[in-house]
Amino acid sequence: MTKKVGIIGASGYTALELIRRIVKHPEVELTTLTTRSEDMSHVADVHPSVRGALDLRLIPFNAAQFAEDVDIAFSCLPHAASAATVAPLLDAGVQVIDLSADYRLSDLEIYTQYYKTEHPDPDRVGQVVYGLCELNRDAIRGAQVVANPGCYTTTSNLPLAPLLREGMIEASPIVIDSKSGVSGAGKNPKPHLHYPEANESVSAYGVGVHRHKPEIDEVLSGVATCEVDVVFTPHLMPMERGILATNYVKPKADINSLVSALKLQYENEPFVHVVDELPSTRDVINTNRCHIAVREAGEWCVIISVLDNLVKGASGQAIQNMNIANGWCETTALL
Amino acid sequence: MTKKVGIIGASGYTALELIRRIVKHPEVELTTLTTRSEDMSHVADVHPSVRGALDLRLIPFNAAQFAEDVDIAFSCLPHAASAATVAPLLDAGVQVIDLSADYRLSDLEIYTQYYKTEHPDPDRVGQVVYGLCELNRDAIRGAQVVANPGCYTTTSNLPLAPLLREGMIEASPIVIDSKSGVSGAGKNPKPHLHYPEANESVSAYGVGVHRHKPEIDEVLSGVATCEVDVVFTPHLMPMERGILATNYVKPKADINSLVSALKLQYENEPFVHVVDELPSTRDVINTNRCHIAVREAGEWCVIISVLDNLVKGASGQAIQNMNIANGWCETTALL
Amino acid sequence: MTKKVGIIGASGYTALELIRRIVKHPEVELTTLTTRSEDMSHVADVHPSVRGALDLRLIPFNAAQFAEDVDIAFSCLPHAASAATVAPLLDAGVQVIDLSADYRLSDLEIYTQYYKTEHPDPDRVGQVVYGLCELNRDAIRGAQVVANPGCYTTTSNLPLAPLLREGMIEASPIVIDSKSGVSGAGKNPKPHLHYPEANESVSAYGVGVHRHKPEIDEVLSGVATCEVDVVFTPHLMPMERGILATNYVKPKADINSLVSALKLQYENEPFVHVVDELPSTRDVINTNRCHIAVREAGEWCVIISVLDNLVKGASGQAIQNMNIANGWCETTALL
Amino acid sequence: MTKKVGIIGASGYTALELIRRIVKHPEVELTTLTTRSEDMSHVADVHPSVRGALDLRLIPFNAAQFAEDVDIAFSCLPHAASAATVAPLLDAGVQVIDLSADYRLSDLEIYTQYYKTEHPDPDRVGQVVYGLCELNRDAIRGAQVVANPGCYTTTSNLPLAPLLREGMIEASPIVIDSKSGVSGAGKNPKPHLHYPEANESVSAYGVGVHRHKPEIDEVLSGVATCEVDVVFTPHLMPMERGILATNYVKPKADINSLVSALKLQYENEPFVHVVDELPSTRDVINTNRCHIAVREAGEWCVIISVLDNLVKGASGQAIQNMNIANGWCETTALL
Repeated sequence: MTKKVGIIGASGYTALELIRRIVKHPEVELTTLTTRSEDMSHVADVHPSVRGALDLRLIPFNAAQFAEDVDIAFSCLPHAASAATVAPLLDAGVQVIDLSADYRLSDLEIYTQYYKTEHPDPDRVGQVVYGLCELNRDAIRGAQVVANPGCYTTTSNLPLAPLLREGMIEASPIVIDSKSGVSGAGKNPKPHLHYPEANESVSAYGVGVHRHKPEIDEVLSGVATCEVDVVFTPHLMPMERGILATNYVKPKADINSLVSALKLQYENEPFVHVVDELPSTRDVINTNRCHIAVREAGEWCVIISVLDNLVKGASGQAIQNMNIANGWCETTALL
Repeated sequence: MTKKVGIIGASGYTALELIRRIVKHPEVELTTLTTRSEDMSHVADVHPSVRGALDLRLIPFNAAQFAEDVDIAFSCLPHAASAATVAPLLDAGVQVIDLSADYRLSDLEIYTQYYKTEHPDPDRVGQVVYGLCELNRDAIRGAQVVANPGCYTTTSNLPLAPLLREGMIEASPIVIDSKSGVSGAGKNPKPHLHYPEANESVSAYGVGVHRHKPEIDEVLSGVATCEVDVVFTPHLMPMERGILATNYVKPKADINSLVSALKLQYENEPFVHVVDELPSTRDVINTNRCHIAVREAGEWCVIISVLDNLVKGASGQAIQNMNIANGWCETTALL
Repeated sequence: MTKKVGIIGASGYTALELIRRIVKHPEVELTTLTTRSEDMSHVADVHPSVRGALDLRLIPFNAAQFAEDVDIAFSCLPHAASAATVAPLLDAGVQVIDLSADYRLSDLEIYTQYYKTEHPDPDRVGQVVYGLCELNRDAIRGAQVVANPGCYTTTSNLPLAPLLREGMIEASPIVIDSKSGVSGAGKNPKPHLHYPEANESVSAYGVGVHRHKPEIDEVLSGVATCEVDVVFTPHLMPMERGILATNYVKPKADINSLVSALKLQYENEPFVHVVDELPSTRDVINTNRCHIAVREAGEWCVIISVLDNLVKGASGQAIQNMNIANGWCETTALL
Repeated sequence: MTKKVGIIGASGYTALELIRRIVKHPEVELTTLTTRSEDMSHVADVHPSVRGALDLRLIPFNAAQFAEDVDIAFSCLPHAASAATVAPLLDAGVQVIDLSADYRLSDLEIYTQYYKTEHPDPDRVGQVVYGLCELNRDAIRGAQVVANPGCYTTTSNLPLAPLLREGMIEASPIVIDSKSGVSGAGKNPKPHLHYPEANESVSAYGVGVHRHKPEIDEVLSGVATCEVDVVFTPHLMPMERGILATNYVKPKADINSLVSALKLQYENEPFVHVVDELPSTRDVINTNRCHIAVREAGEWCVIISVLDNLVKGASGQAIQNMNIANGWCETTALL
């Protein structure tokens, strides 16, 4: 019997990517879309690109009704709003894939420092499985709630975590220079994202203070023998979607060993490929894949990784998490 | 002695284009920039691309002070706000180049119909010279106030007005299909101009009701022997600036005669060129030029015209109008 | 039993779109990719975006071997090369969906005039079913060979053909102003398609002489009571994909009747939607859909239609044709 | 009396930027444009954007004639071709600003290693002044030949050289992650620069082997107390022009001291600005300026610098070098 899926915060970009894929998923039925507006808009008016694929209206969220109607919830709400909303659903037994940052970090203090807010569901912090699928698959199986990783985090941790775990790179310094398409900033118009401003221009932002930095640190520290403190600089690119991370690390082995270790790690993975040619974000757009290439640069090693911030960096991985958690074929609705 | 120039509404895109050029103009000094904000921001913070070129702060507008400080005003305000603001300046003897639509149309009823507002200075309506420089030069000389034409209007009227005046094309049908960069919609963020929405997409808007239609009609009717009623469809292109108009007309002479007539009309003009190759908007970006090419298509004639909406379509032509009105070399600060 | 599919000319953009969809098609297996190169490249090196989805090499074309290996062929070759290549396959009984223009026109003289070449398979000209699916479905069923329509043609004929057939618009004048993304020009680098040239610029091309004009004319003449001779101007937009056609017609009935007629025509169609809001190409990118909206503009009617030139304008419709011809569910691999 | 200027290799992007500015330069007259083609094309057909500004044809290069006709030559030829061409001009007493890499490096071996060719004028290698204007002004004055710096080099060395010279940052590690618009790759169409490929995508290239790395190293080593060996990764951005360098260094003083040192270094410079807000490439496009901002990131310091690769990164700086070398006002034709 198919399970019923609801999306909370269904008007944004990550919700659209969920919808596109979930309507093709044979194990589930998309029955509920909620939004903070009272408009009761039809999904085809909010997301014209799914016209004809789904006949639902976006409704206001009501926890009791939602918990009754839905077996699996994807939360696309902003941080703080998300945990406040899904906590009662969790209490009611709904399975939740949380695309917000709320359950990603295990340290409440760091959460408060970076997100500038009190956590609305502090008791669950540190208890939720972190959904970096390829590296955490066993823990995700059967989970009631999964914290879906950040887009920058996924891009860099897929190549770096195995190398750190195997002791093949130094834990410090690690310099991560990331470039993201504008969709990563969400659907709300802002002056610097106005087309004539963002177009044909590149800029850095959040230097040293971006919220994905502690998330990268926590994951990498978990596999290293010491605390990791990366230097992380995100950049806004004049393109809709895609992330390319240029990861600068100090190798402790020759470059071929690093490549071999990564190829071994991912040889049976459908979504992570170690490639020989330097990848473009174009290679992975609209897919759930991450491509990784490795190059030597003097005493350093430069690791390039690319993915689609809205797919493997958000909604694709969220569905992958749902598939793993429910014991379904992991690639369902993702190829 | 140099004249003092002020820009009213100095935070937007047309103001920036004025500033870039006026700071190089030997006959004038840019002394005053006003805005509706109280922030007193430095111009280099509002327009980072002029950093170092101008040391002024944007101040709130005060009519009396402005009239005392400034000889020549450029108004970059929206319609209605513009006439309300410049009327007292005109009374005080300030020369005004109005980039808004307020004094372009000579018929108050049409103004009200298309702009959905009462005109704040109805007595001057129909009394103000229309600043389509190449076709109205004599009237602009010595004018105290000039209505600077719309961007779409200029693009189509430069090729069409001389052909209509010479009786070389039918006054009906005239179909104008125009394509504009996003900067034409201004600097205020809006959902459909958010980068991930406007990027990589094209759409029509204002079909049959765009405000530049009656302006095109009025100019063309003025040179034709009958009333002109064009079909006009503007489109939003995924680019920052530039307009390409595809003008479909019925020729009353062979195509070579049309080309000759346009070449004769513009042979001594520094800013209008009749070209053989089909032009791209790229050819005229950041210039005050308009390029025009003519092609046959069965019984129709297709006339392509391109310009930069912010330059020949707005601020460049505004400076050209100032130059003409003051008897200065017409190309000053525009080459 | 699944049928075996081969793609001839598998290195270009339309082939990539075929591959993406055919690998998910349950009724067929993609077994053969051919190209003019001798490199035997792996498909993942030619098309990095399908890495992991298909393990095939691109091989040189050999007609006898191909006919033995393949049940259904998609030809992505250029005109003339295509008919020369598929003619022997047709003789051998292979089913062919021809994405080139070779079998679209029924008049050899017009073919020669517009394509500047002798037709390599003149006997089949005029005998091949034209694959505009929604309007020609019955004829496509069971066909051995289908001429897949041009991208511009499909965009305009989907709205115009039913209105002409019903006598709701004049057969003349019809002015079609079309805007296409750069992928329509193919994968071969050319100076005017070099990124710094095509980017941030729009231009018209092929005014009055584009090869899709006679194809539009033939289809529309077939449903009208007289010969149709449209004015057609294509434009190159600074975007990867998508076509928006602005179709200017003279209505013979009120605008609501036109809308009703189109809605009635397409109410049960999964891929054609008559919408109320003016559509953007963004609404249909990566889908097999066409969205149509109608507006009044004085005595004219402006009909906007949008589709993805590589999907409904090429490979999506090609698969739709395969589905219809073979009696499979028409939407298979297209949702 | 005005000096006569010629441009060698006048059909490319850097030549266009030279032309745009030189036609406005009161001290010189642009009299000669050469190219390898025999077409004798008019400059307005090669560069439509300067139509009307210059009435010259591009002619084949003849050294004797060129030396007779021209006082100052700008070479826009590729490396190797450039030195081979300008060497006889230098012998004949022509002043040369060389935009190629031929005279930038002082070590012939490194030149051969990175440029994979013998140097055609080895005797002058190491004897030519390096035209990084702000840091080498005295040596440029009166020079007969100037090696115009690379675009990536200028972007990073403007902030890094003063800090190294003052001992305020460690000489190692220095990680430079640079992002460039596509125009940096020149005007020749290539598959990966074809619009549908380069558009909406970002990629790294030349990791560890890019030719600007040894140039950065040589300049920085010249001001440091030890040999500098930077890690340098250039990236291709989906935009026409602009470079943003993210320079990661280890500070030896607190961040405020670094900012103060840079502000002191550049306080009187018209073209280099240390800014508080993180800059965008948009801020400096079409200008000869470089904007620099400094941020702390744990134990590292992140220095962002932006410029227009075709202006301050090439042709603007070339004119600045001409101005300095000839004792003219340094900003002439550059504001």
